[in-house]
Amino acid sequence: MPKINYISDIAQWEKEFQFSSPVKVRFSETDMFGHLNNTVPFTYFELARIEFFKHIGFMQDWLKTDNETIPVVADLQCDFLQQVFFDETIHVYVKANSVGTSSVDLHYMGKRQNGNICFTGRGTMVQISKKTGKGVPWSDDMKKLMESSVEVRL
Amino acid sequence: MPKINYISDIAQWEKEFQFSSPVKVRFSETDMFGHLNNTVPFTYFELARIEFFKHIGFMQDWLKTDNETIPVVADLQCDFLQQVFFDETIHVYVKANSVGTSSVDLHYMGKRQNGNICFTGRGTMVQISKKTGKGVPWSDDMKKLMESSVEVRL
Amino acid sequence: MPKINYISDIAQWEKEFQFSSPVKVRFSETDMFGHLNNTVPFTYFELARIEFFKHIGFMQDWLKTDNETIPVVADLQCDFLQQVFFDETIHVYVKANSVGTSSVDLHYMGKRQNGNICFTGRGTMVQISKKTGKGVPWSDDMKKLMESSVEVRL
Amino acid sequence: MPKINYISDIAQWEKEFQFSSPVKVRFSETDMFGHLNNTVPFTYFELARIEFFKHIGFMQDWLKTDNETIPVVADLQCDFLQQVFFDETIHVYVKANSVGTSSVDLHYMGKRQNGNICFTGRGTMVQISKKTGKGVPWSDDMKKLMESSVEVRL
Repeated sequence: MPKINYISDIAQWEKEFQFSSPVKVRFSETDMFGHLNNTVPFTYFELARIEFFKHIGFMQDWLKTDNETIPVVADLQCDFLQQVFFDETIHVYVKANSVGTSSVDLHYMGKRQNGNICFTGRGTMVQISKKTGKGVPWSDDMKKLMESSVEVRL
Repeated sequence: MPKINYISDIAQWEKEFQFSSPVKVRFSETDMFGHLNNTVPFTYFELARIEFFKHIGFMQDWLKTDNETIPVVADLQCDFLQQVFFDETIHVYVKANSVGTSSVDLHYMGKRQNGNICFTGRGTMVQISKKTGKGVPWSDDMKKLMESSVEVRL
Repeated sequence: MPKINYISDIAQWEKEFQFSSPVKVRFSETDMFGHLNNTVPFTYFELARIEFFKHIGFMQDWLKTDNETIPVVADLQCDFLQQVFFDETIHVYVKANSVGTSSVDLHYMGKRQNGNICFTGRGTMVQISKKTGKGVPWSDDMKKLMESSVEVRL
Repeated sequence: MPKINYISDIAQWEKEFQFSSPVKVRFSETDMFGHLNNTVPFTYFELARIEFFKHIGFMQDWLKTDNETIPVVADLQCDFLQQVFFDETIHVYVKANSVGTSSVDLHYMGKRQNGNICFTGRGTMVQISKKTGKGVPWSDDMKKLMESSVEVRL
């Protein structure tokens, strides 16, 4: 496995995930080289992230038209460890790796049905004000909910 | 060539197109069978249609947040005549085949660089009110602009 | 409901579907008008069609690299009856409406969770030879399997 | 501007790009938040990367069915600096930031028409053997071609 700069101990890192969302590779997501096109895992990250935020109760507010804040993605990265093929089911794991004032560093792990990790990723998401475009701090409750999404680190 | 129910005389039909927009086939738009995935020409229709409506001056208003009306697609169809491959440039032609009270029947033709037609299509678009969701009649000026987009039929 | 040229009796047409595949609307499938982009139902047709062909046992052969035949889409159409929104689950129904020598006319119906039909569609698919590009007739077994996928018409 | 770990001196970094490819934001690439969906810049990276490799003469071989090697993407990342909107033309710049034995670290910069950088990115690409799946070293000529794609660093 290549060195990935956001993972120090892969065994520990993997163990911390609690939440996952399954996704099936679509035919239209393959390319002429015969496997999943490399732009698609970012779509999978988005859908797993949204399921994660629904799970902890954040998404419902963010989707209301009159809500003051929306989440925006500040950066994204993905490391491709194994080729993925049509019709596979990939379990996309999400955790809040670290929580800032108005941002969160989300980590992602894609697992094939045989248990192999096929891709990993991360990205910062910021809660911003629709009006000002500036970061809006998380409430204490929100912070707790995100932190409790990660298995306790001893 | 197969019989296509919205084309009676293909030579005449082809001649009537005046407007076209070029598009280059992306790698991510191919699939594992090695050619353009069949869902993608509808994306090409959308972009050619939008360029067409910008060309005759409609799109600018429809995109304003406070505009009363938006265009919606009522139906779409596509006939695939030839396989299309990565990196080809396709010229996507658009014409207003017939204009109704608040709708228009748009026809599409995709041409490869060698002049062959690779796909044809059509679809009804309706101008609706954002508030009521109901059709809003075209003005006489709008009708004339759409009708003049087709080569005169003698 | 608008008149759709491939549906004569909608109640009867609807009743004939036996197979369906669920799909959840992704955030990346919405557009700036706030609802499902009109190019996406064709992706849903593709995935439901593939599940259908796996269900009746055809897909497995077509995906083998050394298989003589592949299925190609000859045409596709979609009628948009209701706007569809982010995070909805749509049940996409498929049936073999009529079976030709080497082709099949597939019909599609998208249903929201409240039971409303949000879109309908159809499209011809042809089994062709990879070598010659020409249609390869269905075996009798294949015909029977496709025909039995439709509720008996009395 | 946020700190981006693959850019030390942004003014210098920006100056080194020589090659760019324009892309127009499609309607279907926006999402219900009203701007370019965050998964799409990776598609833009892919098309700019391919144009870059055509420009220096690598792509032509990689696309031949009987060619021994293909390029694979090992990782990708993107930093989103400004929201991008429908119908904008983005110039996507590419450079070979550093060349390894069988890999290359490509850097990307997206620029709006007003000259602002809207996103930056990078990703490693590896030339692998189709048979073994292992890295195949660049020839000296290939190395030179990639290195000459970057403005000389003094």
